[in-house]
Amino acid sequence: MASVGDLSIPQRVLLGPGPSNVHPRVLQAMSTPLVGHLDPTFVELMDRTQELLRFVFQTRNKMTLPISGTGSAGMETCLANLIEPGDEVVIGVNGVFGTRMVEVAKRCGASPVEMRAEWGRVFTPEQVQEALDRCRRPKCVALVHAETSTGAWQPLEDMAAPIHQAGALFVVDAVTSLGGCPLEIDNWGIDACYSGTQKCLSCPPGLSPITFGQAALDVIGRRSSRVQSWYLDVSLLGNYWDEGQAKRVYHHTAPISMTYALCEALSLVKEEGLAARHARHKRNHEALAAGLKALGIELVAQEGHRLWMLNSVSVPDGIDEAAVRSALLNEYNIEIGAGLGEFAGKVWRIGLMGESSSQANVLLLLESLEAVLAQHGHPCQPGTAVQAARAGYQ
Amino acid sequence: MASVGDLSIPQRVLLGPGPSNVHPRVLQAMSTPLVGHLDPTFVELMDRTQELLRFVFQTRNKMTLPISGTGSAGMETCLANLIEPGDEVVIGVNGVFGTRMVEVAKRCGASPVEMRAEWGRVFTPEQVQEALDRCRRPKCVALVHAETSTGAWQPLEDMAAPIHQAGALFVVDAVTSLGGCPLEIDNWGIDACYSGTQKCLSCPPGLSPITFGQAALDVIGRRSSRVQSWYLDVSLLGNYWDEGQAKRVYHHTAPISMTYALCEALSLVKEEGLAARHARHKRNHEALAAGLKALGIELVAQEGHRLWMLNSVSVPDGIDEAAVRSALLNEYNIEIGAGLGEFAGKVWRIGLMGESSSQANVLLLLESLEAVLAQHGHPCQPGTAVQAARAGYQ
Repeated sequence: MASVGDLSIPQRVLLGPGPSNVHPRVLQAMSTPLVGHLDPTFVELMDRTQELLRFVFQTRNKMTLPISGTGSAGMETCLANLIEPGDEVVIGVNGVFGTRMVEVAKRCGASPVEMRAEWGRVFTPEQVQEALDRCRRPKCVALVHAETSTGAWQPLEDMAAPIHQAGALFVVDAVTSLGGCPLEIDNWGIDACYSGTQKCLSCPPGLSPITFGQAALDVIGRRSSRVQSWYLDVSLLGNYWDEGQAKRVYHHTAPISMTYALCEALSLVKEEGLAARHARHKRNHEALAAGLKALGIELVAQEGHRLWMLNSVSVPDGIDEAAVRSALLNEYNIEIGAGLGEFAGKVWRIGLMGESSSQANVLLLLESLEAVLAQHGHPCQPGTAVQAARAGYQ
Repeated sequence: MASVGDLSIPQRVLLGPGPSNVHPRVLQAMSTPLVGHLDPTFVELMDRTQELLRFVFQTRNKMTLPISGTGSAGMETCLANLIEPGDEVVIGVNGVFGTRMVEVAKRCGASPVEMRAEWGRVFTPEQVQEALDRCRRPKCVALVHAETSTGAWQPLEDMAAPIHQAGALFVVDAVTSLGGCPLEIDNWGIDACYSGTQKCLSCPPGLSPITFGQAALDVIGRRSSRVQSWYLDVSLLGNYWDEGQAKRVYHHTAPISMTYALCEALSLVKEEGLAARHARHKRNHEALAAGLKALGIELVAQEGHRLWMLNSVSVPDGIDEAAVRSALLNEYNIEIGAGLGEFAGKVWRIGLMGESSSQANVLLLLESLEAVLAQHGHPCQPGTAVQAARAGYQ
C-alpha cells in the first residue's frame, strides 16, 4: 500500500463523479523532476499541450489553455472574463452546476436570467429562444453539457443559431463531457468552454482546460471595466501561453507537474482516438445500465439524454444509501458518489470516466453492489446483474 | 532522461526564483494512485496537511489551508475576501509583488494607498505609520515578506502594533519566505497570510497555503457584499476543510495529488525542524555571497535585509546576462532567474530554496558561473569563487 506522510493510501476503484482512475503513464509524468516555468523544454510542452487540447476540444481557437485551478476555476474564468456589471446572462439551471453558474455570475455583477428545468431533464432550443426573448440585450447563454449532479446530457448542436441570432455568446460547461462523448467547439458554434482534468481525461484534478473563440475575445477586448480576477484574466494568461509570442510574459508560476500530467493524459486520448474513446464510454454505460436494471435500479435522467460517463441511479426503496456506499468503499475499495442537492439520499452517482470506464470495472461494480445489496435485504438473484451486463458486451 | 508525451525532460538544478528542486519522496507522493476528494483517507490527509501548515506558519489559526491555485491565487484570496469596494488598503510597493498586490486590490474595488520604496529596500514601522496617517479608515496593510523580484527581506516583527492601533488588519505575502526563514504568524500579529508551495517548501507549484486569524474572519463575517470570487471564498472553503465539521461540504474537487505532495513536503520540513532548515538556508546564502564576491558580483538588496533563499545579484559590466543564463542552462543544466521589471537585464536572481539550498549546489553554481563568465571575458582567477565559498562553510 502506498503512503503519504505517515498515512496509508488505499488503492481505490474510482467510480464516482470524479476523480477517475489515472493511467500509470500519467502518474509517472506527475513524478517527473521539475523544470522551470520559463525553461525552453517547458515552453515546448505548453505548445504541445495546447495542440492536444485543441484536438480534444475540436477547435482551432488560439486561446485554448489550462487554467491553474480546478473546473470551478474554469467556470469562473469564462464568466468573469465575459461578464461586466449589469450584463444579462441566460443560464440553464437543471442541477448543481447550473446553480453554481448563477452564483458565480451574480458575483461577477451579472443579472442572471435563470432558465429552469427539472433535475435530470434538459433544455430545447425553443426554451433557449424563449429565455432570450425575455432579455433586452443578452450577453451570453450558458449551458451545462454533462450535468454531473443528475447524469443529464444536454444536446448542444442546435443551440448556437438562436443564441448568435440574439447577439449573445454561447458558453458551455464541459467539465464532465470532454474526452468522453462528442464535443465540437467549432462545429457547434461554442464561443467559450471550460472543462476539468479529473473526469474523462483521467488526469488528477487541479487544472481546467478552457477555450475562447474570436467572438468571445472580441467581447473581452471591448470591455469597459477590468476583469475582476487578475489570476484568471485570459488576456494576461494569453501573453504567457501564446505560442506566437517571441517571449513568454511571466504571469504566475504554472503548475509544472500538473501540466506534465495533462500533456501525458491528452496524449493517451489522442492515441486511443476520440471516436474509439467515445464508443468505449457508450459501451460500458450500456452494459452497466443493463446490469443495474437486472437489480431493479433505474437511471434517473431523462430517457434519451443519459450521460455515458456519469450514471445517476435511484436508490432502491428501503435501502440506506450511505451504508451501501460505505460498504463498497470499505469492503471492496470501490468509490461511487452520493446524490447532491435535491438528489441527496435518493440517488447514487456511478461514474465510468476515462480510465475508469472499462468492462472489468462494470462487472466488478455490479457483482459487488449485488452482494452488498443482498446483505442489506434487497432481493436479487445472484449473478443476474453481471449476466445482464455481459450480454450487453456481446 | 525522463519524458512526457514524446518530449524529453532534462534534469535541471533549479536555482532560480522557483520552482525549486523537489525531494524524491515528494515526487513519489505525486505519483500515488488517487482516492476521491471525500474519501475518509483523503479527509484524514487534509487534517494532517492543515496541522503541518499550522506548524510551518507558527499559528493556531483554524482557517489554515491550501488554496487550489498558485501563490497569486493566494494573494487574490487574501485581498478578495478582506476587501469591499471603496476600502482603503495600504500596500508596500518595492518590487513586482507589491505592484501586483496593488493591481489585484484595485480589481477588488479597493482604493490602494501605495507606500513606496526603492527596489531592493524595505519599509520601517515609521513609514507604515505615516501611510496609515494618510488614511481615513484603513482596512488593511499588506507587505511582502520576501520580495522575489529584488531579494529584499522585509522585517515584520514590529509592524502589527501601528497597524492594529489604526484598526487595520496586517496582511503578509510569504510566498518565498515560508519554510526558509522565520515567520511567526501568531507572535507577530499577522492577520492573513498567503504562500506558495514551489519555493522553500520544495513542493511542485499548484497550491497556495493561506492562514486567516480570527480578526480577519470577523471582518469577513461583517461584509455587506459577497466575496467577488466564488472559487476563492474562504467561508465556503472552510466548510470543506474545517475538521470540526461532522460532514465535509463539497465545494470543488480538491487537487488530490498536489495535496499528497504538499503533505509529504511539509512532513520533510517538520522532520528537519524549522530552526535547522532556516540555519541551512542562512549558511548556504552566506557561502554563495562570499563566492560571488570573489567573482566581483554584489548582492543588490539593502544591506542587512538580504534574503537567504533568493539572491538578487548585479550582472558584471559588459556581460550579456541572457547569454550567461542560457549557457548555464544548456551546458550545465542549471537554471538561474532573470531580473524582472526595473531589474530586467541588470540582475540575476539566484534561488537557494528548500531542497535546492545545499552546499553541493552552491559550489556547483559558483564553479559553473566562473567558467561561463571566463568564456565571456570576465576576469576571474580560476577556483577563487569556490574557495571563498568553501571557507564560508568552515
